[in-house]
Amino acid sequence: MSEPKGYVEKSYERDTRYINDRITADGAESGWKAEPGRYRLVAARACPWANRTIIVRRLLGLEPVLSMGLTGPTHDSDSWTFDLDPGGLDPVLGIPKLKDAYEKRQPGYPRGITVPAVVEIESGKVVTNDFAPMTLDFSTEWRQYHRDGAPDLYPQALREEMAPVMKRIYTEINNGVYRCGFAGEQSSYEDAYDRLFTALDWVSERLANQRYLMGDTITEADVRLFTTLVRFDPVYHGHFKCNRQKLSEMPVLWAYARDLFQTPGFGDTVDFEQIKKHYYVVHRDVNPTGIVPKGPDLSGWGTAHGREALGGRPFGDGTAPGAVPEGERVPTEHNPWVGADGQLTVRTPGV
Amino acid sequence: MSEPKGYVEKSYERDTRYINDRITADGAESGWKAEPGRYRLVAARACPWANRTIIVRRLLGLEPVLSMGLTGPTHDSDSWTFDLDPGGLDPVLGIPKLKDAYEKRQPGYPRGITVPAVVEIESGKVVTNDFAPMTLDFSTEWRQYHRDGAPDLYPQALREEMAPVMKRIYTEINNGVYRCGFAGEQSSYEDAYDRLFTALDWVSERLANQRYLMGDTITEADVRLFTTLVRFDPVYHGHFKCNRQKLSEMPVLWAYARDLFQTPGFGDTVDFEQIKKHYYVVHRDVNPTGIVPKGPDLSGWGTAHGREALGGRPFGDGTAPGAVPEGERVPTEHNPWVGADGQLTVRTPGV
Repeated sequence: MSEPKGYVEKSYERDTRYINDRITADGAESGWKAEPGRYRLVAARACPWANRTIIVRRLLGLEPVLSMGLTGPTHDSDSWTFDLDPGGLDPVLGIPKLKDAYEKRQPGYPRGITVPAVVEIESGKVVTNDFAPMTLDFSTEWRQYHRDGAPDLYPQALREEMAPVMKRIYTEINNGVYRCGFAGEQSSYEDAYDRLFTALDWVSERLANQRYLMGDTITEADVRLFTTLVRFDPVYHGHFKCNRQKLSEMPVLWAYARDLFQTPGFGDTVDFEQIKKHYYVVHRDVNPTGIVPKGPDLSGWGTAHGREALGGRPFGDGTAPGAVPEGERVPTEHNPWVGADGQLTVRTPGV
Repeated sequence: MSEPKGYVEKSYERDTRYINDRITADGAESGWKAEPGRYRLVAARACPWANRTIIVRRLLGLEPVLSMGLTGPTHDSDSWTFDLDPGGLDPVLGIPKLKDAYEKRQPGYPRGITVPAVVEIESGKVVTNDFAPMTLDFSTEWRQYHRDGAPDLYPQALREEMAPVMKRIYTEINNGVYRCGFAGEQSSYEDAYDRLFTALDWVSERLANQRYLMGDTITEADVRLFTTLVRFDPVYHGHFKCNRQKLSEMPVLWAYARDLFQTPGFGDTVDFEQIKKHYYVVHRDVNPTGIVPKGPDLSGWGTAHGREALGGRPFGDGTAPGAVPEGERVPTEHNPWVGADGQLTVRTPGV
């Protein structure tokens, strides 16, 4: 995602108008058929909405069929850019900024240039930037391309129960932290703060006696909660004033977050440096100096969390994802729990 | 204290030029003799340097001889103001803003209008705003007016040892947090952060096996460290990016700070609401919206800290201060650990 200039407003509301074509198994709906090598996922490690797609793609093993381009952590008011790539160009799309793919799709594209976006490689056009259905479609419409042992992150039998859980996580937590941080008035900030912590107390209670949000096995709902939790202490606590407690002071959520973090597919996608840099450098309305905090200390993320005692089968009938492909590894300097091979150096026992 | 407009600079340096007359027991040095009823201490609960004087005045029982005026937590670029007083005037000095007393002393006073300041009531002139010697003089030059049982906060036998400790606390911690928060460049911020946490590790080590900084008994050095620690999680951690850990995540310092907080004369002077409001509203260079965080949760301050196990005699041969005078009580809404009578509702056992 990205926020438009002047995002601090009386009471923050996210612009949720997206290019919402869907890529489906048969392509019947919109002509976009799930096909190996046809599309490229453009993401940014900094962005929680994009991090969601990075995690799901990896858990499902879509790397060989859906390549990934990564923008840098900061962007100007115009676009996310491929400033980390050699020559500043995405090596597959050949463009310097993501905006180019939006313009290909719709000249004069009037809304925010957001990640994640799926781009059709041949035409260079954005197919969709609608993050909410995107990962669900990875689970359902791309099923024939999943790796052996891919978990079922969106099980048919749980979908009805997942819908309100995921909705509340989205409105109150994923977006709730932004509502705190971009509030332009004290009263709207305080309302947002109360809503956020009410929701965090709710998930904490839900997770007190069960390992994952929907029970014994990781689902899409956990992915969605994780991407906000992993950013909580590095960014939201201070930068967005979500400061009733740190995540590390909320025992159930902290243990839950560490459990996921230590699970392949989660912690190995997290680039703390890019996360901090994005928020603190881009949001000059909130942080005029652009100075990026040196903290927090990250040593807690690898500590024992004890959640195995709750039982559970993290990947259900499936298995953990394997090695992180070269070129998609988070450097150790940006996440002390990732080794030189891109793998987590500490893992939850049994995962 | 107060910071001039445009305080964010490449590398922050405090202007330490003060009106440095001293009030002494015999007045021989500068004509300012310690006398009951002659002077008024002007402080702000928000300000750590002023908080120091509020604590020492109360520990020594100087209330009957040295009255106290309190400004509000926020100020414009011009001056701290008596906006909390009826009619917006200090009831003794009869002035709306502290600047008036500086102007009486020196028309066109060119530097910052800072608290704490001691004002001669009859002339309305600031005698001194030099906070460093101010509290030491309360201990030494005002000794004949101390209450029965006043502790010796600046014992002759310890002064030589105290000097480097207090100097390091001042440069690295009291002022160190400002150096982090007002850094205008990433590198100067990072240097300041390293210096700060190096010093916090040093005091933490020093306090691991002894109850107070200088040994078994509270001294001026503890007062000076406390005023920064009590502001750490509400302000410095987020607002000034001092975020390696929260105070509540540094076990020795957190227990030490709670021990002092629960000691009469410390926690009963702390107004968390004014503290937060001051920094977040005044420093628009750091926090453009002026929004004040609702957190942190303050419930930890009253919890058991276990420091009694280290032994010690908090007030040495003296005793704890008694009731807080009416008119000088921190409201419960601003500090949940203060009761309606201004007294602490939780106290360290034996104190």
